[in-house]
Amino acid sequence: MSFNTFGHVFRFTTWGESHGPALGAVVDGCPPGIALSEADIQPFLDKRRPGTSKFTTQRQEPDQVRILSGIFEGRTTGTPISLMIENVDQRSKDYSEVAKAYRPGHADYSYDAKYGFRDYRGGGRSSARETAARVAAGAVARAVIPEVEILAYVVEIGGDAIDRANFEKSQIDKNPFFCPDEAAAGRWEKLVDEARKAGSSLGAVVECVATGVPPGWGAPLYAKLDSELAAAMMGINAVKAVEIGAGFEAARFRGEQNADPMRPGTNQPVFLANNAGGIAGGISTGQPVVCRVGFKPTSSILTPVDTVTREGEATEIVTKGRHDPCVGIRGTPVVEAMMALVLADQKLLHRAQCG
Amino acid sequence: MSFNTFGHVFRFTTWGESHGPALGAVVDGCPPGIALSEADIQPFLDKRRPGTSKFTTQRQEPDQVRILSGIFEGRTTGTPISLMIENVDQRSKDYSEVAKAYRPGHADYSYDAKYGFRDYRGGGRSSARETAARVAAGAVARAVIPEVEILAYVVEIGGDAIDRANFEKSQIDKNPFFCPDEAAAGRWEKLVDEARKAGSSLGAVVECVATGVPPGWGAPLYAKLDSELAAAMMGINAVKAVEIGAGFEAARFRGEQNADPMRPGTNQPVFLANNAGGIAGGISTGQPVVCRVGFKPTSSILTPVDTVTREGEATEIVTKGRHDPCVGIRGTPVVEAMMALVLADQKLLHRAQCG
Amino acid sequence: MSFNTFGHVFRFTTWGESHGPALGAVVDGCPPGIALSEADIQPFLDKRRPGTSKFTTQRQEPDQVRILSGIFEGRTTGTPISLMIENVDQRSKDYSEVAKAYRPGHADYSYDAKYGFRDYRGGGRSSARETAARVAAGAVARAVIPEVEILAYVVEIGGDAIDRANFEKSQIDKNPFFCPDEAAAGRWEKLVDEARKAGSSLGAVVECVATGVPPGWGAPLYAKLDSELAAAMMGINAVKAVEIGAGFEAARFRGEQNADPMRPGTNQPVFLANNAGGIAGGISTGQPVVCRVGFKPTSSILTPVDTVTREGEATEIVTKGRHDPCVGIRGTPVVEAMMALVLADQKLLHRAQCG
Amino acid sequence: MSFNTFGHVFRFTTWGESHGPALGAVVDGCPPGIALSEADIQPFLDKRRPGTSKFTTQRQEPDQVRILSGIFEGRTTGTPISLMIENVDQRSKDYSEVAKAYRPGHADYSYDAKYGFRDYRGGGRSSARETAARVAAGAVARAVIPEVEILAYVVEIGGDAIDRANFEKSQIDKNPFFCPDEAAAGRWEKLVDEARKAGSSLGAVVECVATGVPPGWGAPLYAKLDSELAAAMMGINAVKAVEIGAGFEAARFRGEQNADPMRPGTNQPVFLANNAGGIAGGISTGQPVVCRVGFKPTSSILTPVDTVTREGEATEIVTKGRHDPCVGIRGTPVVEAMMALVLADQKLLHRAQCG
Repeated sequence: MSFNTFGHVFRFTTWGESHGPALGAVVDGCPPGIALSEADIQPFLDKRRPGTSKFTTQRQEPDQVRILSGIFEGRTTGTPISLMIENVDQRSKDYSEVAKAYRPGHADYSYDAKYGFRDYRGGGRSSARETAARVAAGAVARAVIPEVEILAYVVEIGGDAIDRANFEKSQIDKNPFFCPDEAAAGRWEKLVDEARKAGSSLGAVVECVATGVPPGWGAPLYAKLDSELAAAMMGINAVKAVEIGAGFEAARFRGEQNADPMRPGTNQPVFLANNAGGIAGGISTGQPVVCRVGFKPTSSILTPVDTVTREGEATEIVTKGRHDPCVGIRGTPVVEAMMALVLADQKLLHRAQCG
Repeated sequence: MSFNTFGHVFRFTTWGESHGPALGAVVDGCPPGIALSEADIQPFLDKRRPGTSKFTTQRQEPDQVRILSGIFEGRTTGTPISLMIENVDQRSKDYSEVAKAYRPGHADYSYDAKYGFRDYRGGGRSSARETAARVAAGAVARAVIPEVEILAYVVEIGGDAIDRANFEKSQIDKNPFFCPDEAAAGRWEKLVDEARKAGSSLGAVVECVATGVPPGWGAPLYAKLDSELAAAMMGINAVKAVEIGAGFEAARFRGEQNADPMRPGTNQPVFLANNAGGIAGGISTGQPVVCRVGFKPTSSILTPVDTVTREGEATEIVTKGRHDPCVGIRGTPVVEAMMALVLADQKLLHRAQCG
Repeated sequence: MSFNTFGHVFRFTTWGESHGPALGAVVDGCPPGIALSEADIQPFLDKRRPGTSKFTTQRQEPDQVRILSGIFEGRTTGTPISLMIENVDQRSKDYSEVAKAYRPGHADYSYDAKYGFRDYRGGGRSSARETAARVAAGAVARAVIPEVEILAYVVEIGGDAIDRANFEKSQIDKNPFFCPDEAAAGRWEKLVDEARKAGSSLGAVVECVATGVPPGWGAPLYAKLDSELAAAMMGINAVKAVEIGAGFEAARFRGEQNADPMRPGTNQPVFLANNAGGIAGGISTGQPVVCRVGFKPTSSILTPVDTVTREGEATEIVTKGRHDPCVGIRGTPVVEAMMALVLADQKLLHRAQCG
Repeated sequence: MSFNTFGHVFRFTTWGESHGPALGAVVDGCPPGIALSEADIQPFLDKRRPGTSKFTTQRQEPDQVRILSGIFEGRTTGTPISLMIENVDQRSKDYSEVAKAYRPGHADYSYDAKYGFRDYRGGGRSSARETAARVAAGAVARAVIPEVEILAYVVEIGGDAIDRANFEKSQIDKNPFFCPDEAAAGRWEKLVDEARKAGSSLGAVVECVATGVPPGWGAPLYAKLDSELAAAMMGINAVKAVEIGAGFEAARFRGEQNADPMRPGTNQPVFLANNAGGIAGGISTGQPVVCRVGFKPTSSILTPVDTVTREGEATEIVTKGRHDPCVGIRGTPVVEAMMALVLADQKLLHRAQCG
């Protein structure tokens, strides 16, 4: 879990910048013998792909993945799987303004402070384009955990939340917001469109549920399943908050409200509630693993904001270019990918220690 | 960051169970030449120590730390620092009930599911007693980052939040709740006492602020400063939620509200807001690093809860014994410790890469 | 594998100095449910214990191990196993000479160059006493790999090698040199005694064989089984050379001499030779894993050697005190321990990836 | 140091098979601001490139490296550097024999035993082609340690060693053997040519010296500089032995012969010998770091060898195809690369801990 690598036994490393020739991921530690081809990965990239509706950035990227190693005769060999996605629509534009002044809310200043300079074209390494590599790696992870079903969806945009009573799983793929509530999707259409036209942006909350995780994955302390998930989710661009199960709401419960009662079940106990979000003491309980992730509104807006230049002079800046009005929407498949990556790693770690 | 070790370059490993002879931590990678003695560590343990008020568990533990290695003539040598705390008040009681049935909300079932059995005495490894080892390690971490001041305090208990207008730093040490709002502390006294007498428990939200962190600590992706903090905080017992800066609130902001404007400053820019919580693109900005942590109410309550036995029979269970009515209170020094441990590690990592 | 931790999934961290109150190891990632008590560890420490013959240092250390965590009702729980050995015979002597001048061949100068100062009492952290912690950890590792038998023995002291034709496994425990050749043991008695009386020291070569390792442990590249063994063995104090199988001799073979022919066997192929030392492409073949380890003569000798003081003045130094005339002898159980630690880790890693 | 990643702070991960479309490395943790282009990497690849003389395999690979990320305006940005080398001469041939039977001395059997199947084309992941990726990564490492000069050369082929009295650094690049002794190079020409014509192969010993390493790099125990070097070197294909400094010879010395006396020097002490190979207690002393690496003869020979098929039937096999008659020769730039990779990592690790 250093720098650009994530995971213990099932590990992936990503590389690439927004305006470089390509970006990619190397997935290491994948079990051998798993059927895997580019066709298994592409659908997940297509979900995250930009330019598919007016609610996402207009950058046109086919995001076509190539597998460069680790597969033989259609199956994983156990050696590193190198995945590459070429950048094709790095629009040549004038970056002189971004090069000179820091965009508040972006990583411009902090990168310069750390490294002394930065690749400012399209945000360089800090661009959300990097998440394409995670989505590709996440597709490999899914193949490692066929027993698990992972589903993420948007539950709130710009403070407007779904009505849980309207939750329809089948709705999620029917609107451009991954929204399970048809009525909310209708409202969001206006909301996001208004923000887009105003050159503003909106935050969002994404929920992710993994069903089929058997009890026993995780570890007592620093590789706690919830700790790993928190690291994974907070590592996504624009994420500022992570909850497991009832999350902050649990902090308002009394003990008797929060405890999830147990009853005898067929192979394992049945729980009568899931405030724990499927994790107790850092280890899965067999209930659905549930987390919620808060995305801030992207800082790329047309309203001028006070800032300073690299030389420390006062100025103001407007971020033109092609941007997502609500970056949380396309964050949804990324949240799913990170869930898959954490669970695949935990499955293998559990197998290592407990056979 | 595997199992029971946390950190990349400044790493610590903890060991020990609630009812074993002792618990401890080994801190590795500490820079040499730093003045350090048991007297530098003890005050932090004393803040976390049980039995100091009626609002914490009545277990009496002096939590006296011993340094067994890594110090010579009062200074760190650069070799591993072994810290040990003996358990003295492991009350001999009847654990047969806990051994037989799973306490809902506890790690009883998940540990059994993972390992096949567990040390059930006082929660074994899943007991919050383990956090004493983290607090001791955290004290070493503080010595590595003298430029940083870390302060955590409780901002909400049982849904009753402080009034930010009443915030008085000097109040924090004047009440048993680490509460910066005198009025709230007064209310909490009744609230927690009532819960304690009812055999119930309450959740809490702890906020932690680190000032003096220079710009440039952190990394773009999987060792993002916020990702590391999220892992560290979510790894604390009973924590279910973590926010950085404005956190979930940021998901309700529009882009122009969320961007923290910058103005020229003396050595580095001045920010006119801190919604980012001092971190942009995973790297510190020089502003205070701010996080908030949600603790669930402990599951050790006197209300009977439905559960199952190890053999899968229905039963109900009441958790007697000595417990904290609000585990978030004593979690406050643990949050501080984890903040220190993450920052010390990030300081050294930054130095490694950027000199 | 950072600093003072070794291993990927089955990991151990050691701590402690020659003249501190104690030393120890924390073993993490151990599978649960394995029968383990102090009585399983002590015999290995007894083999390494100083003061047992005139051919080892006269420091008297009972090297009594205590298990402080990770065991419940006689079995491993899957949580960290903390092992502690108290130092009892830190003879109070005058270290002012060692504090002032560097002993050539020792770590005195390099530690000072790295850390700015050092715990010079008995070599501090660089003392071979630290290997007691490894031997204790190694005993835990053996319990993880009951299918493997590990045997190390000395094949050469001071350039005088055993005759392979005289190899008798039963001899190994019958002499103070772990020597499988009775005749060689007789010669070494005189050789080592002469060196001891002359205040000199001798090098040695230790061979270690692990039988019962199934085919498939290891990894293609940087966690190659041979790479891990090389790291483990070269990490032992005084070791300067490591060979796998035919080792340097293989560099003198032609291809047709070196290839180990294979014939059909019952469950797996039979090999007609073992120049590979049981490892091909970094992965075990099912043949015995064989390595040889070269120990230099200890630098603690009575002959005055030219050196410099901390202030950079020319001087000469004689290393008095209690030292091993041939540190390779007591290195033998340490070599066994490292072999066990590597194999236990590789077994779990293999299980992680390949089920 | 897991699987296909090596290093702690300066880390690299390689991927790719002999007959896949490409192979590559991702270098992470590289300090920012270092001038680096493909032209800085290519010369090292050219040294390792096959097909340059009749003493190496006749496979024709231009081994042209492409930098896909991590460089902006000619300098490293501190983000991952992705290096890719396309395979162009994967000769389409009949691999049915290799697919069916195990080549003794190759990784065929052990890969199958581990993974259940393997990419048998040209050795797949176990092919020495993978070392091209290490050489590319090593060139990046060299840019991180400009203070260090690294030089490797062959000191022995097929048991015929150089005469140290004839050592001429300038000779190394004047013959196809990286041989510093002109007379030996002449003899080796006949020796290797004879082996090549006979369809046999020869082993070799490569020595590597790094000058300019300051005192203080390394760590006391499991990240000992010598332990890291041993892991790095033993991780190279066909390597079976590693020595530091006097190596196995030191095991034949008496203490007074082995200790390297010290005398006052200008900025640091001067050593009158270097049996330690520049490392004491796992930490560099400021003397040249010296290691020797033993390569076995490649197992790809024309002499039929007894073996078994995948189904366990007895057969014999001849390895046709294009192979190096002495793989140690082209191993020389790989040894240099691994030395650079270890030292760059240790430099950054030292800076992390000791500022």
